[in-house]
Amino acid sequence: MVSHRAAPVHTHPDEVSVQTALATLADPVRLYLVRELASSDDWTRSCGSFDVSVGKAALSHHFTALRAAGLVEQRDEGPRRVNRLRRTEFETRFPGLLALVLRDD
Amino acid sequence: MVSHRAAPVHTHPDEVSVQTALATLADPVRLYLVRELASSDDWTRSCGSFDVSVGKAALSHHFTALRAAGLVEQRDEGPRRVNRLRRTEFETRFPGLLALVLRDD
Repeated sequence: MVSHRAAPVHTHPDEVSVQTALATLADPVRLYLVRELASSDDWTRSCGSFDVSVGKAALSHHFTALRAAGLVEQRDEGPRRVNRLRRTEFETRFPGLLALVLRDD
Repeated sequence: MVSHRAAPVHTHPDEVSVQTALATLADPVRLYLVRELASSDDWTRSCGSFDVSVGKAALSHHFTALRAAGLVEQRDEGPRRVNRLRRTEFETRFPGLLALVLRDD
């Protein structure tokens, strides 16, 4: 039996301040999650599929922050919560910012 | 008599990680300082010329962070420490980032 969770709450990038966007991306765990999602197809990565050193509660907190910054969309598929990077909407709101954090350097 | 301070230590933007750049700009006081410097001529603004609600020690800490992120250059002119935004170098290193934080929205 799967426990029922509240559906995730989302914020559209248009409602996000540049300060929030920067603060959200400045965290190394969130930066890693964004980079992983950028190299994965939409809705293929569950929250449990990331190789992070933080606990479940901390990881959940990071996903909440990513949703609140308009960076990630989530939906529940049975027991899995799957993710996509809101690449197009975020790019429209903050042109070039994703490209900066996704580049190799 | 003016107390002698150590010359400020600078970091070139080329040596700055994107994570440091984002974290530095995500702070509201530092964002304000960067915006003020962007609308001022180089070397015209002393550290004491900004209308901030933080104390001297905190302000000094913010300027240290701005230098460490390659955002601000400082030099001492007698008793004044004056500033310039490293607009060109920072733009070369992080294209579009300054424009994002300087725009009105």
